[in-house]
Amino acid sequence: MTDTRPAPLTGLKIVEISAFVAAPLGSMTLAQLGADVIRIDPIGGNIDANRWPISDDGTSIYWASLNKGKRSVTLDLKSEEGQKIATDLIAEAGTLITNLPARGWLSYENLKQHREDLVMLRLGGWHDGSPAVDYTVNAASGFPIITGDDERPVNNAVPAWDVAAGLYISNGIMAAELDRRSSGKGQEITLALSDVMLATVGNLGYIAEVQATGKTRGALGNGLYGAYGQSFECADGRQVMVVVISNKHWRGLGKATGLSEKLEMIGPLLDVDLSTEGGRFEAREAIDAVVRPWFAAHGSEDAARLLAEAGVLVGGFQAFEELVNSDPRCSTENPMLTEIDQPGVGRVLATRVPLKFGGSPAADARPAPTLGRDTEAVLAKME
Amino acid sequence: MTDTRPAPLTGLKIVEISAFVAAPLGSMTLAQLGADVIRIDPIGGNIDANRWPISDDGTSIYWASLNKGKRSVTLDLKSEEGQKIATDLIAEAGTLITNLPARGWLSYENLKQHREDLVMLRLGGWHDGSPAVDYTVNAASGFPIITGDDERPVNNAVPAWDVAAGLYISNGIMAAELDRRSSGKGQEITLALSDVMLATVGNLGYIAEVQATGKTRGALGNGLYGAYGQSFECADGRQVMVVVISNKHWRGLGKATGLSEKLEMIGPLLDVDLSTEGGRFEAREAIDAVVRPWFAAHGSEDAARLLAEAGVLVGGFQAFEELVNSDPRCSTENPMLTEIDQPGVGRVLATRVPLKFGGSPAADARPAPTLGRDTEAVLAKME
Repeated sequence: MTDTRPAPLTGLKIVEISAFVAAPLGSMTLAQLGADVIRIDPIGGNIDANRWPISDDGTSIYWASLNKGKRSVTLDLKSEEGQKIATDLIAEAGTLITNLPARGWLSYENLKQHREDLVMLRLGGWHDGSPAVDYTVNAASGFPIITGDDERPVNNAVPAWDVAAGLYISNGIMAAELDRRSSGKGQEITLALSDVMLATVGNLGYIAEVQATGKTRGALGNGLYGAYGQSFECADGRQVMVVVISNKHWRGLGKATGLSEKLEMIGPLLDVDLSTEGGRFEAREAIDAVVRPWFAAHGSEDAARLLAEAGVLVGGFQAFEELVNSDPRCSTENPMLTEIDQPGVGRVLATRVPLKFGGSPAADARPAPTLGRDTEAVLAKME
Repeated sequence: MTDTRPAPLTGLKIVEISAFVAAPLGSMTLAQLGADVIRIDPIGGNIDANRWPISDDGTSIYWASLNKGKRSVTLDLKSEEGQKIATDLIAEAGTLITNLPARGWLSYENLKQHREDLVMLRLGGWHDGSPAVDYTVNAASGFPIITGDDERPVNNAVPAWDVAAGLYISNGIMAAELDRRSSGKGQEITLALSDVMLATVGNLGYIAEVQATGKTRGALGNGLYGAYGQSFECADGRQVMVVVISNKHWRGLGKATGLSEKLEMIGPLLDVDLSTEGGRFEAREAIDAVVRPWFAAHGSEDAARLLAEAGVLVGGFQAFEELVNSDPRCSTENPMLTEIDQPGVGRVLATRVPLKFGGSPAADARPAPTLGRDTEAVLAKME
């Protein structure tokens, strides 16, 4: 297309002083949308510089994956000189993201002296200031109790709160930027990881459910609450996930398995209305029992194909190795993925932002910098 | 404060035609940031109108929780007249979020005829157009294989991909709005739920890990990859999550438990460097074994208090009922939460956006509308 404009955040400059997942993900998202992000680390790197997984030569694959497309500057942040340079960089950029305690030179009050319309976002643990990470916030959320088959808590392997917090950070910066462009004013934004969790628990209805009904959901294994969904083991030992939400899906399940008549018998058997999501949820054990032998008699690929053809939502479970090595959706066939040369890691697939903009497209993925790569160039430009 | 400005997205108008979690969450996030969101549904409601959990009178707590602070208009979207009214509303608002297939009257090409600078975001399943929901995308992600204790897949109870997709949607709309305010032009944005998953798998390092090292992580139960973390059962039968990332945390674990000397013996025993995250990860089973009896001998509250005092990251697991009924962080003591009267549900706690803006604060939570509540008022204003 000849009609396209630069990526949407072109021109926005951001300094990041942070570590771990959430804050680096937030500023990487903004970089992927076109912003110029300088990550400042202490000399030798922040606490996440060497985090596992690491490549054969010890490079952190974790760090490289969460800092794609940024510039990297290292400074002695304990010295007055280092703090002065960082302050100048922040003042020039006009936007700061940090997960450090914003005290002393890094306080909003101080930095505002150097840049009147500064936008500064600070991520913390609990809203009362006590420290927290994804795993401890998750423990309090209620979700581990209903993950898996029984009441024993099971953590998500996906750090859902860190990911959501990262995306709230980029939301917050863009919202403040929209305000700044009309008001001419900056502001401090704070975000507690625990509030990201609480907001999500609330948005998904779990808070109001307890208050309105006095009860909540138990562990359902791989079942779906309030609708019909289940995982089944197939003849080849692999598992598939089946989801039935609409009546079209429900008819498809009967059609694909040839078990429509038996499935319909469950209605009068259990006195439930199988034309509703709630009715199918109440009848889930009977539905499981009727269709399970069909899965056991079919290979996972056949089962998934037959169900998909009949309009049922279905997906095979796979390990990361299979996703990366043999799923075409995780390859350059998918325009979201690009091959990059990542220093210390090698030639790997990298993702750009999943949003596809027709008018102002985001760039392909770019490698992460090596630690401190841009220090000299950035400092030379300041003098 | 007298110096505050309106919420950052005040003045932005959005029409939403969607269902389920991701798209409603995206536009609710924008509403929470100050945008005026009209959700249009078919008469009688979309497929998610009656979704569980439901209150005693059958009101969907799910729907109410995901549509807070919006206006609700119902139209016969299958009739030409209904489509014309919806088109007019979209043209007036200038921004559309949908998870319907954008064909016919709902195509970008058509709607652009009615509003030259339209911003339209369309959420789909897989990037190739095949249908998907959180659960089927999750199956493909690799995460269920490493959730829990063994190789049997375990789904997250938290719909992580839907939540992330919702937050990418609000990111996408704000990015396009920033572009529109400078270029004067709108655009179509597409987002595949599967790409949200793939981008996250990539951002967290799992894609590059497989490619660079040829291997990946197995199931670690409630353990932490690449650092030390574990859940322990305490004397009262309750579990706590303990996370050790920094050396300060590590010293704190020894101090709180009085087991510093034994913990240090693990270094020479297993030939690992316990002053690194990776070393502590390699030694995790021995660390588990040394500290487990201490947890078994302490109540969960005592254990958590002692560990927190010693600077260790710690959190007790709790069920939703406990979070809602007895955790002060999930109460109006936390400024993010407000009590609202939700029609059909009752007086419940509701969350606002977790971002706290110093200069242009977002409003307190507002109830969701009842289905179609605003139809008459909105239509009257158009004529």
